[in-house]
Amino acid sequence: MVEHSAPDLDSLFHALGDPTRRRMIRALAGGEKTVGELAKPFAISLAAASKHIKALESAGLLRREVRGRTHLCRLEPGPLASAHAWLGFYETFWTERLDALDRLLREEDARKTEPVPQPVTQPVKGDIP
Amino acid sequence: MVEHSAPDLDSLFHALGDPTRRRMIRALAGGEKTVGELAKPFAISLAAASKHIKALESAGLLRREVRGRTHLCRLEPGPLASAHAWLGFYETFWTERLDALDRLLREEDARKTEPVPQPVTQPVKGDIP
Repeated sequence: MVEHSAPDLDSLFHALGDPTRRRMIRALAGGEKTVGELAKPFAISLAAASKHIKALESAGLLRREVRGRTHLCRLEPGPLASAHAWLGFYETFWTERLDALDRLLREEDARKTEPVPQPVTQPVKGDIP
Repeated sequence: MVEHSAPDLDSLFHALGDPTRRRMIRALAGGEKTVGELAKPFAISLAAASKHIKALESAGLLRREVRGRTHLCRLEPGPLASAHAWLGFYETFWTERLDALDRLLREEDARKTEPVPQPVTQPVKGDIP
């Protein structure tokens, strides 16, 4: 069986596996930011922030543009689309689960509202009026 | 600004950041598997496979059921839905990009097919027939 290797998904999911980096992505969604602006909300050193930015960069999630003395960072959404598509393959699985849950709840509701069945009295042989 | 921490996304994206684990998820999508069956396609030891399986388990992606001497593994799709939803927040970003690209291509097509503009001859004052 031939399996396509997707080495970019490795660095992509690795980049997403950290809350600081996910918050940086969220911040970049609001518009481009300098390295200082990206680092500001976190109680981390500029060096630590720079390491996170590099992880985002190597995952293709961030593009850095040098304007004079300023490094401006911009969100590159393409890899997020790839990850979304990869996960989308499994959508039927969680949808099936939700459908099954929905079915169960409906059945339970139906049982609650249907009239209580009355005991059926069997006519006794030769008991016809 | 209040940020909701989502520690489960950490272990989830970490679990997805490895090609062996992604292939195990794909295998589980085909139905439940024993630990041996999950390990088989990879040139890795059972101990290494077990470590991967534990990473999937702690990310909530795999449920292990003991039946006699057999450990049966099953895909738990819920966390994949969470990751898909997290990424879905950024969908507008890559859609906008694609829309912009689409617009550019259409404009280029239009330029190629539209007739070559003819020089407009301005009517000269007093030149009305």
